[in-house]
Amino acid sequence: MPRAAGAARIEWADGNMPVLRSIRERFAAERPLEGLTVGACLHVTAETGVLARTLAAGGAHVVLCAANPLTTQDDVAGALAEAVVHGRRGDDPAAGVREVVAARPDIVLDDGADLLSILHDAPLIGGAEETITGLVRVRRLDLAFPVLAVNEARTERLFNDHYGTGQSTLDGILRATNLLLAGRAVVVLGFGWTGMGVARRARGAGAHVIVCEVDPLRALDARMEGFEVMPALEAATRGEVFITVTGCRDVLTARHFARMRDGAVLANAGHFDVEICLADLGPGEEVLPLVSRHPQPDGRELNLLAAGRVVNLAAGEGHPAGVMDMSFANQALAVEHLTLNRGRLSPGIHPVPEDIDREVARLKLASLGVTIDSLTEEQRRYLGAWRP
Amino acid sequence: MPRAAGAARIEWADGNMPVLRSIRERFAAERPLEGLTVGACLHVTAETGVLARTLAAGGAHVVLCAANPLTTQDDVAGALAEAVVHGRRGDDPAAGVREVVAARPDIVLDDGADLLSILHDAPLIGGAEETITGLVRVRRLDLAFPVLAVNEARTERLFNDHYGTGQSTLDGILRATNLLLAGRAVVVLGFGWTGMGVARRARGAGAHVIVCEVDPLRALDARMEGFEVMPALEAATRGEVFITVTGCRDVLTARHFARMRDGAVLANAGHFDVEICLADLGPGEEVLPLVSRHPQPDGRELNLLAAGRVVNLAAGEGHPAGVMDMSFANQALAVEHLTLNRGRLSPGIHPVPEDIDREVARLKLASLGVTIDSLTEEQRRYLGAWRP
Amino acid sequence: MPRAAGAARIEWADGNMPVLRSIRERFAAERPLEGLTVGACLHVTAETGVLARTLAAGGAHVVLCAANPLTTQDDVAGALAEAVVHGRRGDDPAAGVREVVAARPDIVLDDGADLLSILHDAPLIGGAEETITGLVRVRRLDLAFPVLAVNEARTERLFNDHYGTGQSTLDGILRATNLLLAGRAVVVLGFGWTGMGVARRARGAGAHVIVCEVDPLRALDARMEGFEVMPALEAATRGEVFITVTGCRDVLTARHFARMRDGAVLANAGHFDVEICLADLGPGEEVLPLVSRHPQPDGRELNLLAAGRVVNLAAGEGHPAGVMDMSFANQALAVEHLTLNRGRLSPGIHPVPEDIDREVARLKLASLGVTIDSLTEEQRRYLGAWRP
Amino acid sequence: MPRAAGAARIEWADGNMPVLRSIRERFAAERPLEGLTVGACLHVTAETGVLARTLAAGGAHVVLCAANPLTTQDDVAGALAEAVVHGRRGDDPAAGVREVVAARPDIVLDDGADLLSILHDAPLIGGAEETITGLVRVRRLDLAFPVLAVNEARTERLFNDHYGTGQSTLDGILRATNLLLAGRAVVVLGFGWTGMGVARRARGAGAHVIVCEVDPLRALDARMEGFEVMPALEAATRGEVFITVTGCRDVLTARHFARMRDGAVLANAGHFDVEICLADLGPGEEVLPLVSRHPQPDGRELNLLAAGRVVNLAAGEGHPAGVMDMSFANQALAVEHLTLNRGRLSPGIHPVPEDIDREVARLKLASLGVTIDSLTEEQRRYLGAWRP
Repeated sequence: MPRAAGAARIEWADGNMPVLRSIRERFAAERPLEGLTVGACLHVTAETGVLARTLAAGGAHVVLCAANPLTTQDDVAGALAEAVVHGRRGDDPAAGVREVVAARPDIVLDDGADLLSILHDAPLIGGAEETITGLVRVRRLDLAFPVLAVNEARTERLFNDHYGTGQSTLDGILRATNLLLAGRAVVVLGFGWTGMGVARRARGAGAHVIVCEVDPLRALDARMEGFEVMPALEAATRGEVFITVTGCRDVLTARHFARMRDGAVLANAGHFDVEICLADLGPGEEVLPLVSRHPQPDGRELNLLAAGRVVNLAAGEGHPAGVMDMSFANQALAVEHLTLNRGRLSPGIHPVPEDIDREVARLKLASLGVTIDSLTEEQRRYLGAWRP
Repeated sequence: MPRAAGAARIEWADGNMPVLRSIRERFAAERPLEGLTVGACLHVTAETGVLARTLAAGGAHVVLCAANPLTTQDDVAGALAEAVVHGRRGDDPAAGVREVVAARPDIVLDDGADLLSILHDAPLIGGAEETITGLVRVRRLDLAFPVLAVNEARTERLFNDHYGTGQSTLDGILRATNLLLAGRAVVVLGFGWTGMGVARRARGAGAHVIVCEVDPLRALDARMEGFEVMPALEAATRGEVFITVTGCRDVLTARHFARMRDGAVLANAGHFDVEICLADLGPGEEVLPLVSRHPQPDGRELNLLAAGRVVNLAAGEGHPAGVMDMSFANQALAVEHLTLNRGRLSPGIHPVPEDIDREVARLKLASLGVTIDSLTEEQRRYLGAWRP
Repeated sequence: MPRAAGAARIEWADGNMPVLRSIRERFAAERPLEGLTVGACLHVTAETGVLARTLAAGGAHVVLCAANPLTTQDDVAGALAEAVVHGRRGDDPAAGVREVVAARPDIVLDDGADLLSILHDAPLIGGAEETITGLVRVRRLDLAFPVLAVNEARTERLFNDHYGTGQSTLDGILRATNLLLAGRAVVVLGFGWTGMGVARRARGAGAHVIVCEVDPLRALDARMEGFEVMPALEAATRGEVFITVTGCRDVLTARHFARMRDGAVLANAGHFDVEICLADLGPGEEVLPLVSRHPQPDGRELNLLAAGRVVNLAAGEGHPAGVMDMSFANQALAVEHLTLNRGRLSPGIHPVPEDIDREVARLKLASLGVTIDSLTEEQRRYLGAWRP
Repeated sequence: MPRAAGAARIEWADGNMPVLRSIRERFAAERPLEGLTVGACLHVTAETGVLARTLAAGGAHVVLCAANPLTTQDDVAGALAEAVVHGRRGDDPAAGVREVVAARPDIVLDDGADLLSILHDAPLIGGAEETITGLVRVRRLDLAFPVLAVNEARTERLFNDHYGTGQSTLDGILRATNLLLAGRAVVVLGFGWTGMGVARRARGAGAHVIVCEVDPLRALDARMEGFEVMPALEAATRGEVFITVTGCRDVLTARHFARMRDGAVLANAGHFDVEICLADLGPGEEVLPLVSRHPQPDGRELNLLAAGRVVNLAAGEGHPAGVMDMSFANQALAVEHLTLNRGRLSPGIHPVPEDIDREVARLKLASLGVTIDSLTEEQRRYLGAWRP
């Protein structure tokens, strides 16, 4: 029965989101969000359900719609008692957004800026945006209230981009292909926060990892970590698996395909499906559920995963609950911060305060059973005397 | 359509088994198995299909039945033109074995000794056995012909036990739970060839790895690689994920369960489902398809994966084709070796000759595009002068 | 003969400072410093000699004195033709500083702010400071000209703090003790940029590494990299080797000493000798040239390296030339930047421009034979359209 | 005063040889060697002093001479009360050997077979040989008593060849050159037990490691660990540091030198100085105490360390005491084993019994504070039922 399945999924996610749970316990005692309406446009998944529970425990009335109707888990939507959920898988997302707007939220949580684009000049307490692309949209808006850039919190990036995507990208590739990574030449294109995560995990799986990167500082980072670094055209002849993670377009094109060995595997871990040039790759036929084989003029065949879409979502399960735990803990504390500082924050985009970041890290460590020291008064004085 | 799907699977496997492919090309030219009947009792999968192709290319008539009827891929069985396949998924395995025996094979390939148990005193050229447990059975037989212990070849163990199971065990755990491994305390019980593979891969995924091992030499190996080493009872309080891979029984019992933290995850990567004591764990309820939650007397709950069965097979896809490539390359060359040395090998169990092992390694390197040096004559003489 | 020995040392350093060399070649062609006097108060070593050569090649008149008279290499001072060097090992440093001031420099390079403290309100083109502690002093000055904070350049910190000190700290410990690191429990106290470098290198040497850190964000970083993280008091019972690298005082005190095992080794990699509380440790006797043994009240004995002074300098050779290459490349380009922007930079402390950082990285990669791609015009436009 | 210095060195070594110490404590209680004379031809170092103490504690009369007069530490020789020591640094080694022979030992410990070559047909209880090269000599002798091949014990090889030489080779290179290893291309020639240790440590130091190996099985091992593998001639163009560790001759010759980049560093970690062809390299001049620079016909210059002699001994301190602890623990237990089994072992070479190996591992773990589980009776029965 879907509702029961949804409840089980929320329960499992809850068990794997200890940071949010400890925030919920405090919220239930302190009720910092009493009387507020929080409108959220997020992916309607079990993890989001746990966030909704947390906000509700703090006293908020939560109204939720789908940032992307294809990612809605209907059983979760049906089972979520702590929020009003608008829309089901496949519904028109604009309808859900209208419903949330109609509920007149005090604070909005956004994933792609669909709510903020409409409500930007409404008399809200504040908002929070989860994604880089959403922030680009928000930056162009004339905001009447403060918006916290949750995606730039350090605990968010560390887990989401680096550890989360690092693991789930390889996981997606394994699920699609069942390749043995040990001993294989893996080319990682892009050595930003995410590419570094992918490269380290691939090495940890026994692969020989080659990095391509246009920024000299990042390229030097890669080399200093012992990776081979070279231009993509040279790496094209060396790799067996290619993973693009640059945020840019046309990273692998006809010039590269022409030099790759027969049977090479191409995967994209960037947000959009523009990193591997599909037009240059030419038509292919599906050989496994998420693998298409693309014959090249000279008879070689290249294997494309998930049609060049972001492989950890398309071929895997996306982020582990433990990753969303950190993102949503930042969201929950952002809502509390906006409430506590009502009227004191200027309109516009604000970073998540470092105190919140540090608190999320502290709660995460506690959930792992890790305690750490504090500075003594003497030490604090000593540092204060000469540190900037 | 099943047959087409089966053909596609064989094709994909073939593309990922370059060592076997290069043997097949040579076999096709040299026809070393001309006129022989090879009887095989193996898992009827796409990879086995590629082995059958290889033997057929060498001139053999191949008759195949299922070592385990639950692992038979019917679409592959239907699509495999190069062998006579007896039995489909769920059929009585004994019937298939009888059919292969009736085909009067000259050489048998076994996975569990079902054929060898019947044919051990028949006038065969020879046989090969794939598994440790099969070898235990073979050792008790009065053999009338030579049998090669394929599972003891170095290239077989390296890929099968160490790299293959190392990767696929974690892959199975991720598919069942979608946990983030980075930062997690993972306890690996057993540091044999396979446990070492699991431990290294878990560390490579960012986990903090603790090893439990009863043999002081292996325990010291683990410690010298920088792992924490401690008794299982102590590790029980520290771990978040426990992986048994000892080959022994009752590795985790009530004493350990009593000390584990709430929500701990238990997985077995050993051959039999006896390593985690299910009786002590008590009844559980399924919370995700491959996860059952087992309440303990004091209210804590422990999560068991795949009912304690070997997690890489039960929750993942088993070995990558690249791993079976090595096993089956050893099998194919074993068949050739038995043929070429017909009448020259004494009855009984023989190791795979080191030359075959070395040839498999050489072909694997070639498939990776790796060439290596040879010794010069002068160097050979120099080494000969003082090496044993 | 000292002078010849000095020349050989400068030559060896030169061969290991390819970045500075390529800057020198450009400087020799472009002469950007023609007519300027550069006054420098640095450690008078072979590497500084190569910097002096580089500035001289650019047209500068270089006047040099010792930041610390104990680190002056007299043979280098004697052999350095490209600079006027004041003072020899053991001389009063104030005298050398006075000489440089008397030379009326246009630009000063400082390591500890001895020159800047005197010249801060003189009509200079600008200055550069190499150290954190020097910057603390500079921040309190009323500057009449721009000063570049060289120590905050990314290429400087990456090599100096992370890779340089990471390697040289362990090197110093090995030279003092000849310990086998593999299998040993090493406690790293502090997980800043430097502590992270020490921890990774210790793990890379096979040690089991435990991290103690008071900042939750850094502590979480350490845990996510798979290190054990715990309070220092708990680590005290576990470690065999302790390395402080916090920048704080009294990191290891009587409370910790009381719990350590007999024979534990204590080393400091922080700038000042205040991290290990020497008063609490009590008197010791020298057992090896850089090791003193300190009996404790209960009979245990603890081994202190280099009297608690920074172990990579006291027991090793300090930074490899390849590290100073990056620092001094930043210095050389800082001098050029100040010159080219004469009159355009406001008085006060400035960061090293990111372009310089990127250029140093580019030159370093080139010296390693590594080339990297550039963005195409289309890619640049694509990124410009949505990146902040 | 030399004698006091020698005593301090023995004391420091003793503190770092906990395995031998625990054996000594048992020997002192049980006196298993009462009345025996042990003749030993070993390197006369502090660590050997600790072995002599151990044997003496067991009741033996120990007579010691130098296996190599250049490694004798005179202060140790003077301070060692527990043995009769013949010879000082630089003395004719044959004289010392004669003295030990004259002492009519019951058991001999050899490092290079100088004693065994003379005494092989004497009525001894037995002997033990420490080195591979010594064993080659012993194999050609007609032995009248059993000799244990200590160098083949697993705990000996693990520590001596793999961990010991792995660390000390890089240590020697750093002491000679003060190079930064991170980011550097390091070529390791030979991937045996020792080469694997060097390669892993170099990678752990942040180097990009390339492996050259003639044996396909070992080459595949290297590749499966993620190393680049290629022929030496190709690696010659890629590397910045080359380390030979093959046991073979002429591994790097004119063909390789011709392709290396200017400034490349050459080091040998093999036993003999024949791996780098010195004749092909041509004459050089010393540029640092252990570095000579060799101009090539085209103007490039190559840097040779320690004249091509084994770099960990020539430029470093050789093995850490913790490594010799394992070797000498095997020696001490070998002496006891020979005594306890007097008359029961056949003449000829015997491996060190696995029980001794396991006991050494157990004592080493105990010294690290590591305890491990034992099998229960039920588990033992279970394993016995199906394991060979």
